[in-house]
Amino acid sequence: MFSQTVEYALRAVVCLADRAPSACTTDEISVATKVPKPYLSKVLQTLVRHKIARSQRGIGGGITLIKTPDQLTLFEIVNAIEPIARIETCPLGLKSHGKQLCPLHKRLDEAAAVVQKSFEETTLSDLLSAPKGVYPLCESPKSAVIAEGVQPAKKTD
Amino acid sequence: MFSQTVEYALRAVVCLADRAPSACTTDEISVATKVPKPYLSKVLQTLVRHKIARSQRGIGGGITLIKTPDQLTLFEIVNAIEPIARIETCPLGLKSHGKQLCPLHKRLDEAAAVVQKSFEETTLSDLLSAPKGVYPLCESPKSAVIAEGVQPAKKTD
Repeated sequence: MFSQTVEYALRAVVCLADRAPSACTTDEISVATKVPKPYLSKVLQTLVRHKIARSQRGIGGGITLIKTPDQLTLFEIVNAIEPIARIETCPLGLKSHGKQLCPLHKRLDEAAAVVQKSFEETTLSDLLSAPKGVYPLCESPKSAVIAEGVQPAKKTD
Repeated sequence: MFSQTVEYALRAVVCLADRAPSACTTDEISVATKVPKPYLSKVLQTLVRHKIARSQRGIGGGITLIKTPDQLTLFEIVNAIEPIARIETCPLGLKSHGKQLCPLHKRLDEAAAVVQKSFEETTLSDLLSAPKGVYPLCESPKSAVIAEGVQPAKKTD
């Protein structure tokens, strides 16, 4: 239902949100997300083009998110990579259907609507602040990461 | 979220369900579904390979569904074309995550689960028996189609 590119973009954004407001290099994100660097570079370019992230050259530069993690939703990222296509009019172009969908297309659009709503309601902060369980991109539980004073996203092995 | 191929396969199966238990030729399905014949042929081959449909040559032959419309679900068709991938273990292969997903992958899997459930609960009969509104693949409302005694799926223009 979601492509490899969507998966990789989400990993990259989770990594950036985890390090925010600090910048990350493509190398750092590649290590943390286990995404091959050439593929990751293309994904990051798309995120920059869609104003999810910005890239700054030079010393102290790197990639950062434009919004803070509590303002950035899963929906915005997925939609930048592969928009969740809603069905607004009959895909067959049947005139009598128009905006009134038949049961087939209604059901497909309902499925897209549920996913859209769930993703709109989920911020990057939500993904990084779950109190229990495993932490995104990170082998150690979050409590251990905090106790050790290390950057979670770096601990991928 | 769903590809053109999934959309075309669903149209073809709705057409076949509408005509069941009669057989349809590829030409008939192509006209009813507005799917180009070469593309449709490939989609139908996939449906035959996944035992959704069967193809019989010769006079009186054609394509038919293997199950009756009340036994065939939307999920079976979507899954034959592009399986709804559930996330069962950490896609990054993080050992400590294993089957316990992080909040990112849990949210993605929940979205897939909701769609899977909705499609599992929807049969082809459900799509064709909605009492009101527009009828799949057909310009006329169902009541008019029945009154006129015509095959709904043929009336695409």
